[in-house]
Amino acid sequence: MLRTHTCGELRINAVNEEVILSGWVQRTRDKGGLIWIDLRDRYGITQIILEEGETTPQILETARKLGREFVISVTGKVVERQSKNPKISTGDIEIRATKMEVLNPAKLPPFTIEDTTDGGEDLRMKYRYLDLRRNPVRQNLELRHRLAKAVRDYMDEHNFLEVETPVLIKSTPEGARDFVVPSRMHAGEFYALPQSPQTFKQLLMVSGFDRYFQLVKCFRDEDLRADRQPEFTQIDCEMAFVTQEDILQTFEGLTKYLFEKVLQVPLSGAFPRMSYADAMRLYGSDKPDIRFDMKFVELNEVTQNKGFKVFDSAELVLGICAKGVAENYSRKKLDALTKFVKRPQIGAKGLVYLKCNKDGSFKSSVDKFYSQDDLKKWADKLGAEVGDLILVLSGETNHTRKAMNELRLEMGNQLGLRKNDDFKPLWVLDFPLLEWDQETERYHAMHHPFTSPKPEDMDKLETNAGQVRANAYDLVINGTEMGGGSIRIHDRGIQEQMFNLLGFTEEEAKAQFGFLMDAFEYGAPPHGGIAFGFDRLCALFGGQETIRDFIAFPKNNAGKDVMIDTPSPIAAEQLDELYLNIQEKK
Amino acid sequence: MLRTHTCGELRINAVNEEVILSGWVQRTRDKGGLIWIDLRDRYGITQIILEEGETTPQILETARKLGREFVISVTGKVVERQSKNPKISTGDIEIRATKMEVLNPAKLPPFTIEDTTDGGEDLRMKYRYLDLRRNPVRQNLELRHRLAKAVRDYMDEHNFLEVETPVLIKSTPEGARDFVVPSRMHAGEFYALPQSPQTFKQLLMVSGFDRYFQLVKCFRDEDLRADRQPEFTQIDCEMAFVTQEDILQTFEGLTKYLFEKVLQVPLSGAFPRMSYADAMRLYGSDKPDIRFDMKFVELNEVTQNKGFKVFDSAELVLGICAKGVAENYSRKKLDALTKFVKRPQIGAKGLVYLKCNKDGSFKSSVDKFYSQDDLKKWADKLGAEVGDLILVLSGETNHTRKAMNELRLEMGNQLGLRKNDDFKPLWVLDFPLLEWDQETERYHAMHHPFTSPKPEDMDKLETNAGQVRANAYDLVINGTEMGGGSIRIHDRGIQEQMFNLLGFTEEEAKAQFGFLMDAFEYGAPPHGGIAFGFDRLCALFGGQETIRDFIAFPKNNAGKDVMIDTPSPIAAEQLDELYLNIQEKK
Repeated sequence: MLRTHTCGELRINAVNEEVILSGWVQRTRDKGGLIWIDLRDRYGITQIILEEGETTPQILETARKLGREFVISVTGKVVERQSKNPKISTGDIEIRATKMEVLNPAKLPPFTIEDTTDGGEDLRMKYRYLDLRRNPVRQNLELRHRLAKAVRDYMDEHNFLEVETPVLIKSTPEGARDFVVPSRMHAGEFYALPQSPQTFKQLLMVSGFDRYFQLVKCFRDEDLRADRQPEFTQIDCEMAFVTQEDILQTFEGLTKYLFEKVLQVPLSGAFPRMSYADAMRLYGSDKPDIRFDMKFVELNEVTQNKGFKVFDSAELVLGICAKGVAENYSRKKLDALTKFVKRPQIGAKGLVYLKCNKDGSFKSSVDKFYSQDDLKKWADKLGAEVGDLILVLSGETNHTRKAMNELRLEMGNQLGLRKNDDFKPLWVLDFPLLEWDQETERYHAMHHPFTSPKPEDMDKLETNAGQVRANAYDLVINGTEMGGGSIRIHDRGIQEQMFNLLGFTEEEAKAQFGFLMDAFEYGAPPHGGIAFGFDRLCALFGGQETIRDFIAFPKNNAGKDVMIDTPSPIAAEQLDELYLNIQEKK
Repeated sequence: MLRTHTCGELRINAVNEEVILSGWVQRTRDKGGLIWIDLRDRYGITQIILEEGETTPQILETARKLGREFVISVTGKVVERQSKNPKISTGDIEIRATKMEVLNPAKLPPFTIEDTTDGGEDLRMKYRYLDLRRNPVRQNLELRHRLAKAVRDYMDEHNFLEVETPVLIKSTPEGARDFVVPSRMHAGEFYALPQSPQTFKQLLMVSGFDRYFQLVKCFRDEDLRADRQPEFTQIDCEMAFVTQEDILQTFEGLTKYLFEKVLQVPLSGAFPRMSYADAMRLYGSDKPDIRFDMKFVELNEVTQNKGFKVFDSAELVLGICAKGVAENYSRKKLDALTKFVKRPQIGAKGLVYLKCNKDGSFKSSVDKFYSQDDLKKWADKLGAEVGDLILVLSGETNHTRKAMNELRLEMGNQLGLRKNDDFKPLWVLDFPLLEWDQETERYHAMHHPFTSPKPEDMDKLETNAGQVRANAYDLVINGTEMGGGSIRIHDRGIQEQMFNLLGFTEEEAKAQFGFLMDAFEYGAPPHGGIAFGFDRLCALFGGQETIRDFIAFPKNNAGKDVMIDTPSPIAAEQLDELYLNIQEKK
């Protein structure tokens, strides 16, 4: 037996017990005839004490040579500590060791195994197995486990069946790029890895499975932006015989359960809801962060025709009001904000401010065009009071909204209004069914080609497709899209019409999705679903921005796992078996 | 709202409630002014009744045109049935419908959606979404869900963390063939899909995760035998600071929990254990079916040197005893058994029988060589009594054992001794570390290259490697290997020695598994684990032999999904992006 207890388990009531502990040496202190060892495992740290006379000189000698991260096993008696350590759960006791065995020595780690490490990103990834030893990283993955468990408990409780859908499926050019898998048994043919189990979960609804879910790996061969992974995990869900309202209720329930169960954070009341159109109008984003207010106010009426050409020529003049911070924003800070919005990623031409001074007067960067009375109208429109700071952007509508969204979020950050432990969910509803792509000059599905148009907009499908709204919804928490879904098409005719709108020929639609359209003819129930980004949900629950440290073995931004060194070349025989040649580099 | 209740939910206490049900039309009966509909969903069947006067003529007309598998929604009042149906849970009530809506019509299914269908395998696979509507298939997948849930509950309860390991890993030529995934970002390089998360779970032990598990998809590009799938699911587990005994106890606990929780079958007492050597000697198999006895008995001593050349020249003469069936085995049945063992797959030269007659005499197919006294010695050796049938095979040791294993299982089948609802687990222990491969003239790892030799056999590693036993174990239930695992090597030196024994050059070992050997130098704890074949476990629990119907969307024996038609060719642009050409067929 290698241990009787873990290093986080023993309490004062265990005094006098003979125990065996195993773990890693966190640190040792040597006071001559007395050696202390902090022994660590996943569960905690227990203090070991070796004293001359209680153990052999050989063991003391071995103990003196222990390095950090050595793996040892210790036998001894639990005793009450003279000076207790209230900071750790085992702090009342220590083990007076009589035996000790080195199970495995350890080289000096390339970075310190501490909560705050001196290791850089590259080194941590190469030695990920050491990085995972650090408490913060391990705790992230423990959180991930607990979240997954809670998801499954809730779904099971609500009659959802977890069904594994296949990983080796078929490549469909719609959407992002597929990873493909060459077939050895069928020369020149390929499987593809799923970007989502979408069609399979719909088929399960046709099969009468009624309620399906799956925590499932999905794959996208995209150029990786920061914090994207080629493989990622979804909580994938589908329900039959439901309306949008049934789905919102069910997954609002799941979300509340997870916050309560995993974080002990109650989310009281119904989640607020907002149409896509309102989200764009009031926040310039389909994923508004509603932890703080600062809604957009349109100022065209009160700002135009006063001689300020920038505003006069603008399609939209948009203001936000930051409460009570006028005095904090010096010229220097305002200049920095102007610089911020003029960055190429945001691309505003400039920034206009208006301060509501203590004395009731107004100070603006454009006050040569506007009287105090004029400026008061701005302030009134925005509901601004003494001490508030108003920031104004203008230009083409979409562009201005997008820029103002960035400015608003930046102000939220600067003013500490986006707290990691403040959780504000929001349903965004009524997404457009289609979006026009300038480049390819055709419609793309905003959600995916299986999303149902709203019945009341169905008549516009032929005449004004861009105006058609979908029964599609996103769950946004703290400005991040956590989940998205839709009511699906369950009628072959409408599905065909949809593929046609998206530029599929009849043959293409049939070759790629014929099985689904066939299935719709054999008694397909109305159905809909949702999928949550599980990696991102873990990061949100962990109060962090990046998903990478919530994944045990992530890829880097070049799609590489530098620890195992993949991707990498394969043997010529493997290529031959797969009937493949590598193209010469051009 | 599309339903207020499911079709399996309403009982007598709901009488007079107004309800909405939705589902599939199982069947309709039309008695003029009265129409009955059996409405089905995943949860059950509820009888609907439409009567002239209670509903509109239009609805009655629509109801008359309903076909099988139409999807409808019905509104009405729950009433007590006049003639109750005790066979279904809703049999006390029916719904007197006032409204009915056809949500989706259905074409006539290509096979009947009944427990016993007229659909052949190919048709069922092409229309898998309809096949999944059948109760037996859906129930298999419900069982799979419940099993997976129970596994996770147990593992979570026992402090195991479910950690997702990557799907895009690195190809290693050891073991079965990998599926590979070409990289678009790194020309000419590939990922591979994991055959198991072996190295990752070992790294998690090095990381101090202590207890890991995962229900995980694994992949093998093998020529598919019946009932093999290119993608399959494992319950993958690993523990640190454990001996073999700790692992056996933990997973015996899991197994008992699953049988109790999911099947309400208690498996009392400790699971029996048997060494690999004994299993081969007594059953000719490393996965003995111990639901019935018929152990092998070596008969060389009592059968040789009596002039029967076949036995005299045999390395091994082996007998089994089938209790009480001597009279049932006519000449014709014995000839059929002889034919069975002579089939090329089994390859015995012949079969000798001995009947223990009621009158105390013996009848044998070779009695011209043996006296009644001689034959009595056979019977005594086998513990045979009056009425028993003894079957004897002979020849080269391994070959004879293998053939006798087949004969024994066949006898078990013929005599009804292998019942699907009788569960007999067995641990097989002390597997050899290595097996000699005649073809390549080198050792292969019997389990895998990471398995630890038994410490007491370590000294034979250099001198007599074939005799070294491993701390490797299989859990066998009813003659099928359900799980297998081992204590792993956690020492770089031994791991290097192992790779060397397996014919790896130092460079190859380092290129493929350098990260693991490096990890062993940074404080790797002793560890071990096990993996269960989850698909097979589901089939066992479902009392069936084939795993295919416990997988929602399986591939056929050619590795194809005929429903979605994959694998299939991909676009030339996709190939170009991946820097690949298809080789011309030779």
